[in-house]
Amino acid sequence: MAKKRNAFYAQSGGVTAVINASACGVIETARKHKDRIGKLYAGRNGILGALEEDLIDTSKESAAAIAALRHTPSGAFGSARYKLKSLEANRAEYERLIEVFKAHDIGYFFYNGGGDSADTCLKVSQLSGAMGYPLQAIHVPKTVDNDLPITDCCPGFGSVAKYVATSIREAGFDVESMARTSTKVFVLEVMGRHAGWITAACGLASEAEGEAPHILLFPEIPFDQDRFIAKVEATVKRAGYCVIGVSEGLQTADGKFLSDAGLRDAFGHAQLGGVAPVIANLVREKLKLKYHWAVADYLQRAARHIASKTDVAQAYAVGKAAVELALKGHNAVMPAIVRKSSKPYKWSIGVADLAKVANVEKKMPRDFITTDGFHITAKCRTYLSPLIQGEDFPPFRNGLPRYVRLKNVAVPKKLGTPFKL
Amino acid sequence: MAKKRNAFYAQSGGVTAVINASACGVIETARKHKDRIGKLYAGRNGILGALEEDLIDTSKESAAAIAALRHTPSGAFGSARYKLKSLEANRAEYERLIEVFKAHDIGYFFYNGGGDSADTCLKVSQLSGAMGYPLQAIHVPKTVDNDLPITDCCPGFGSVAKYVATSIREAGFDVESMARTSTKVFVLEVMGRHAGWITAACGLASEAEGEAPHILLFPEIPFDQDRFIAKVEATVKRAGYCVIGVSEGLQTADGKFLSDAGLRDAFGHAQLGGVAPVIANLVREKLKLKYHWAVADYLQRAARHIASKTDVAQAYAVGKAAVELALKGHNAVMPAIVRKSSKPYKWSIGVADLAKVANVEKKMPRDFITTDGFHITAKCRTYLSPLIQGEDFPPFRNGLPRYVRLKNVAVPKKLGTPFKL
Repeated sequence: MAKKRNAFYAQSGGVTAVINASACGVIETARKHKDRIGKLYAGRNGILGALEEDLIDTSKESAAAIAALRHTPSGAFGSARYKLKSLEANRAEYERLIEVFKAHDIGYFFYNGGGDSADTCLKVSQLSGAMGYPLQAIHVPKTVDNDLPITDCCPGFGSVAKYVATSIREAGFDVESMARTSTKVFVLEVMGRHAGWITAACGLASEAEGEAPHILLFPEIPFDQDRFIAKVEATVKRAGYCVIGVSEGLQTADGKFLSDAGLRDAFGHAQLGGVAPVIANLVREKLKLKYHWAVADYLQRAARHIASKTDVAQAYAVGKAAVELALKGHNAVMPAIVRKSSKPYKWSIGVADLAKVANVEKKMPRDFITTDGFHITAKCRTYLSPLIQGEDFPPFRNGLPRYVRLKNVAVPKKLGTPFKL
Repeated sequence: MAKKRNAFYAQSGGVTAVINASACGVIETARKHKDRIGKLYAGRNGILGALEEDLIDTSKESAAAIAALRHTPSGAFGSARYKLKSLEANRAEYERLIEVFKAHDIGYFFYNGGGDSADTCLKVSQLSGAMGYPLQAIHVPKTVDNDLPITDCCPGFGSVAKYVATSIREAGFDVESMARTSTKVFVLEVMGRHAGWITAACGLASEAEGEAPHILLFPEIPFDQDRFIAKVEATVKRAGYCVIGVSEGLQTADGKFLSDAGLRDAFGHAQLGGVAPVIANLVREKLKLKYHWAVADYLQRAARHIASKTDVAQAYAVGKAAVELALKGHNAVMPAIVRKSSKPYKWSIGVADLAKVANVEKKMPRDFITTDGFHITAKCRTYLSPLIQGEDFPPFRNGLPRYVRLKNVAVPKKLGTPFKL
C-alpha cells in the first residue's frame, strides 16, 4: 500500500468567482482519501506560503466552511502575483520549495492558476525528480482570460462571461430607452490584456439582429479609428444608439495600448488605465454624441452572485480530478475540460501533459470574429454559449451574498529559517 | 357612475431596474378597472410622446408581456430627460399636453419619475384645472438617487443599493486575497450627484469590523485630501488593503467636483467624468500604492438580475396605488412609501401632496454619516438594510436574463399637428 503523505494546495495569480470551488473540490476529495492523504496544507498567499513556510492547516476548517468555498469568490487562502524565475536564474527558490515540502512530508503539490503557474508546477516537478524527492505536481486550471491551451475552456471564464453578457444586456436596455434625449453611446470596458475571450462573451447578449452590444473591440484586431467611428455613426443612425464592449488590451496597429493613450491630470501626471474613457472621448470628439462609460474591473471576476452553474461545476470538477489523478500516480499533468458536444453541451475531464500547457497562450481564432472585426461569429457563439448556462446563486443573508471567511490556522513551522523573496 | 375615460402613463428621467415594475402595477391595475379606465396609453419616450402625440396603445400587449415588465429593467416605452420649463416661460408646452389629452379623452395622467417630474405633474394638474379640463394627475415615485421627500424611500434605490453593496463586498474579498503582492487600494465609483444614498449603501457590505468597504466618500462631506490620504494609509497599514466607495458627486470645500479635476488627453482635450480614476491617481501619487478602480455607471441602475425583492414589491405597489388613488378621485398626489417599523420591516402605501414633494431634495442626514465623515452609522444601517432584503431573480434563458421587449404599437393621431420641442 502506498505511503500516506501530506498535500499542499496554493492559489496563484488573479482570483476568480470560482477558484474557491476548485479549492473545495481539492479539499473535499482529499478528505475522502485519508488513507492516502494526511493533512492538506494551503499556502498563505499562494506560493509565498510555501517559500516562507507559512502553511495553513485546512483540517481545522469545518465541513460546512469548506462546502461554502463552492459559493465564495476570491482566494480563500490568499493568492499571489509572484512568478518564480527560471531554474537557471533562481534555483534557490525551487530548492526552497522542495525543502519546505520535505520538512512537512508533502508528497502532493496542487497548484491552482493560469499559464505561469502551469510552468512553475512543471519546473517543481522536474526539480523534485532531479533532487530525488518524491513529489507529484498537479496543476489545477484557472483563469478568467480563458487562454490556456488543450483544455476546452478555463474555470473562472464562464462566470465572467455570464457577468459581462448580463451587464451589457442590461445596460443596453437602459441606453436604448433613454437614447432619444440622453446617452447615445455606451462603452463597457472588460478584462483581457492579450486575448479577447471576455469581450467576445459580451457578444452573447445580442441574440437577435440589432440588439446590444453593437460593436466589440478585440485585442486581436488592431484598432482603426476611422473604421470604428464610421461604424458607431452608422449604428446610431440606424438604431438610435450604440453599445460597445471593449477589451482593456485594445491596441493600435503599431502595438500601442489605447489605455496608454496619454491621459494626463491637471498637473501633467500620467493617468493610468481605462480604455473606456479613451474610446468614449473619441466618440465625443469625432461625433459630438452624448456618451457614458463603465469599467467593470474586479467586479467582473469577483461576481459570484451571477456565476455560471457550468463554470462552478467545472471548477469543482478540476479540483476533484486533480486529487484523483495524484492518487492514480500522475505527475506534471493538469485536468483538462474536454467538450464532447456543444448542442446539447456535454463535457468530461481529461488529462493534459503540463509540458504542453506551460507558456502557450490561446487567443481567439480569427473565425470566431466577424470579417469586419467588430463582432462574434455563429461559430464563436456555439463555443461560448454553453459556458454561461445555468445559475448557481449563493445563499443570501441580510440581502447580501453570504460568503465564507476561513479560520486559516497556521501550521507550526518546522524549519523556521527565514527566506528572502 | 363616473364616466369612463382613457389614461396616460409616461416614464421620466433616468431609468431604473424596477421602473417597469411600476408600469406593470399601473397597467395591470388599470386593466382590472375597465369600467372606469378605457385605454391606457403610454408616452413614447416619456413626456415627448404626449407633446408629439406619439402615444402607445398598451392594450395591444399580452398579459404575459405586461407581467414580464415586472422583471425587466429600463423604460419599456422609452423615458426622457426633458424638463418642462416653468408655466411662465413656456405655457405653450403645458397647453399642448392638455390639447393632446383632450384629443384622446385622457382623464388620468400617471407620471413616473423623480423630483422634476413631480413638479411637472403638479403644474399639469394646476393648468388643467385653470383651463377647465378635468384631469387627475398622479405622480409615481422613481429615482435611484433616493432623494424625494415624504416617501420613506424611492423605488429604484433599493435595487441599486443591493447591487453596489454586493459588488463592493465581492471586490473586497478579491482585493483582500491578492493584497500581499498586488492591488492594495480599490476604488468603486457609484452614482449620486448630490446625495450620498448610493454611496451609503456600499457601507452595508461591511457588517463586521474591518470588512470592506473601509472608506466612503459622500457628496455631503467636502473632500479633504490630507485627511483622506491619512485614512487610506492607516487602513492599509492595519488591514493590508483598503476598499473605497466614492460618489460621482464628490466635491471639495469650494464646491468643485473632483471628477472635473482637469484630466486631459494627449491632445489637451478635457476628459470628462470619472471620480474613481482621480481618487486612485491621488493614492498612487501620495502613497505609491498599487490600485485598481471601477466605474459601475449604468450597470448599477440596470442590474435587474440582482434587484431587491423589497424594491420590486414597492415599485409595483406605487404603480398600483397610483391607479387606485385616481379612481378614488385624488389629484396632484403621489403614493408614498410609509415605514411602519424597521425591525421587522413593515411598510404601507400612503398619500403625499405633490405640492410638498416638488422641488425638495432629501439629502443624507448628518447623523447617518460617522463623525469622521468616512462611513455610515448604525442609524443609517437600520434605515438602509430593509431596502435590500430579498432576491427577485428574473427568468433566465440561454444563461442570460430574459427581458421583455414590447410591441409598442402607435395610437393613430387625432390632432396630427406637429409640435416643435
